[in-house]
Amino acid sequence: MSSETIAIAIDCMGGDFGPTVTVPAALAFLRAHAAARVVLVGQSAALEPLLAQYPEELTRRASILHADEVVAMDESPTLALKNRKKSSMRLALNLVKEGAAQASVSAGNTGALMAMSRFVLKMLPGIDRPALCPVMPTMSGHVYMLDLGANVDCSAEHLLQFGIMGAMLASALDHKPAPSVGLLNIGAEEIKGNEVVRQAGELLKNSGLNFIGNVEGDGIYKGAADVVVCDGFVGNVALKVSEGLAQMLGQSLKQEFGRGLLTRLAALAALPVLKRLKRRFDHRVYNGASLLGLRGVSVKSHGSADAFAFEQAIARAYEAANHHVVERISACLSDLHARREAAAAAANKENA
Amino acid sequence: MSSETIAIAIDCMGGDFGPTVTVPAALAFLRAHAAARVVLVGQSAALEPLLAQYPEELTRRASILHADEVVAMDESPTLALKNRKKSSMRLALNLVKEGAAQASVSAGNTGALMAMSRFVLKMLPGIDRPALCPVMPTMSGHVYMLDLGANVDCSAEHLLQFGIMGAMLASALDHKPAPSVGLLNIGAEEIKGNEVVRQAGELLKNSGLNFIGNVEGDGIYKGAADVVVCDGFVGNVALKVSEGLAQMLGQSLKQEFGRGLLTRLAALAALPVLKRLKRRFDHRVYNGASLLGLRGVSVKSHGSADAFAFEQAIARAYEAANHHVVERISACLSDLHARREAAAAAANKENA
Repeated sequence: MSSETIAIAIDCMGGDFGPTVTVPAALAFLRAHAAARVVLVGQSAALEPLLAQYPEELTRRASILHADEVVAMDESPTLALKNRKKSSMRLALNLVKEGAAQASVSAGNTGALMAMSRFVLKMLPGIDRPALCPVMPTMSGHVYMLDLGANVDCSAEHLLQFGIMGAMLASALDHKPAPSVGLLNIGAEEIKGNEVVRQAGELLKNSGLNFIGNVEGDGIYKGAADVVVCDGFVGNVALKVSEGLAQMLGQSLKQEFGRGLLTRLAALAALPVLKRLKRRFDHRVYNGASLLGLRGVSVKSHGSADAFAFEQAIARAYEAANHHVVERISACLSDLHARREAAAAAANKENA
Repeated sequence: MSSETIAIAIDCMGGDFGPTVTVPAALAFLRAHAAARVVLVGQSAALEPLLAQYPEELTRRASILHADEVVAMDESPTLALKNRKKSSMRLALNLVKEGAAQASVSAGNTGALMAMSRFVLKMLPGIDRPALCPVMPTMSGHVYMLDLGANVDCSAEHLLQFGIMGAMLASALDHKPAPSVGLLNIGAEEIKGNEVVRQAGELLKNSGLNFIGNVEGDGIYKGAADVVVCDGFVGNVALKVSEGLAQMLGQSLKQEFGRGLLTRLAALAALPVLKRLKRRFDHRVYNGASLLGLRGVSVKSHGSADAFAFEQAIARAYEAANHHVVERISACLSDLHARREAAAAAANKENA
């Protein structure tokens, strides 16, 4: 293994489909990334026969790490953290901790993954809890939005940290030197947002980030910013509302096209166009939310991901590690700290 | 004028199009509501020639109240409240205050309308600020969601009040004896919502309303509840995110259908179906958000409403007045107060 090789630890047992999805995804990833390696973590009896179906030129860059246990999708994160020390999820994170892998990916229980990632990888100095940052399609490309995890009741300082982490993720994955950062806010005439959001705006202004100010809800999909910052409550609602609306429109379209013979013929004619549209916003392409603020790369895939979707999550973890997202965040936090110390020193000097 | 007649005061100068939209809408409303009357408030020189185009059988139920001033769409609500005492918006609300009309409708400046409604009509006892409650389409019908106004930083008590007001609006407009009320919340495994939302859930449980518990973002469009309660920040984001996503999907559909000759032919075939879909979720049908918590009925139309959309807002104001939404809310608040006093008395007795 050359020093350039990046190894991804894959929790092969997580998600709705387990190894039947995760193993093919890992091998497809290897095919597309000639310099990468994977460690398939899970029940070796299940993994070995699947792996054996692939050519040696690929499988020589894959190894298996046996794990006895699996974290159940409905298991309490606290109990999973306590009891599942031999789980595939835990062992995959251990590999990152030990430096044997540079990133890990899991489609398992979100709460358990957050708790374990935090416990095993530890937080960066000054960050309390990991933030969950997915990537979402927009009119003009895509947007990173955070927090979509469980960080409710955020302080202005937390929102600032989200801005830093999101910007560094965008810079690592999209190679943008100064991605634009927007603060999710409301547009009422008299009162622009609540107290915390107002304060966060002030902090972001003085952060050194490319902060573009407030972004309203519709701005997310208009591509108003590369990164949109909000607390976990608002972010969760925004994401779920989008899912619900897209589902409603999709189902209604099906119903309308299914009404009669003529509409079914129209559906046939429209099918290639509708397929293109579907491909354009294919949620599988956007699979893989980054857990940020940790001392290592941990990526969460949707539980229902298929092999194509799970491969995207692996590729995203690979890019994050390859382009040093953790080091970027760490440097940006240090920079902010230094900037504040300098400002405080200058203020002291003035007062003296 | 019989005691049964309901008169609607219409701010004819508000909105992007003024009398050219509001007057035809008012007359269409009169045609559909044989017992109703309207007072057209605005510059009589603009209103009279428009009104003269309609048959006397309709216009005898319409009167004009001249107003010198107009509130500009970008005017500060505070300044509008102070300086626009002779505006069409203000005079329309005055009519409701004086009992000469039973409801008012405006497509003007939202902030100014909220400030003026509050000042002129006054709040119901125990309510601090008006909440803005639109109606939105769902898979199975529609949902009332509040607050979509500027009530950010809400307390649990505010969210309870939103539940009461929304439920009474749904009962008045849809004739449901016990509309279901859901609390917008997130589904993270460990932490279900923030402290305020948790407390609001407890209050709603003991409110006597048909409270069905938490609703996640996607539940709004799935029709999980007749009424969904949230603070104004989250509500605004949810609404704007929906608008942004719908726009993105609509524009992309247009782009895909416009790509080439074949796709344009497909578009022709699909057009009737797409039109049906558009009609199904026609935002004009849902125009007219109720300002709740006031001692009178005040309805806000979209500024960009056309005559059909504005007519829906007038009809909604009419239904709200006709089915006594203010009295229903007032009774429900008194009921809650009595319930709490009884509980406190019982607790005191036990302690004595």
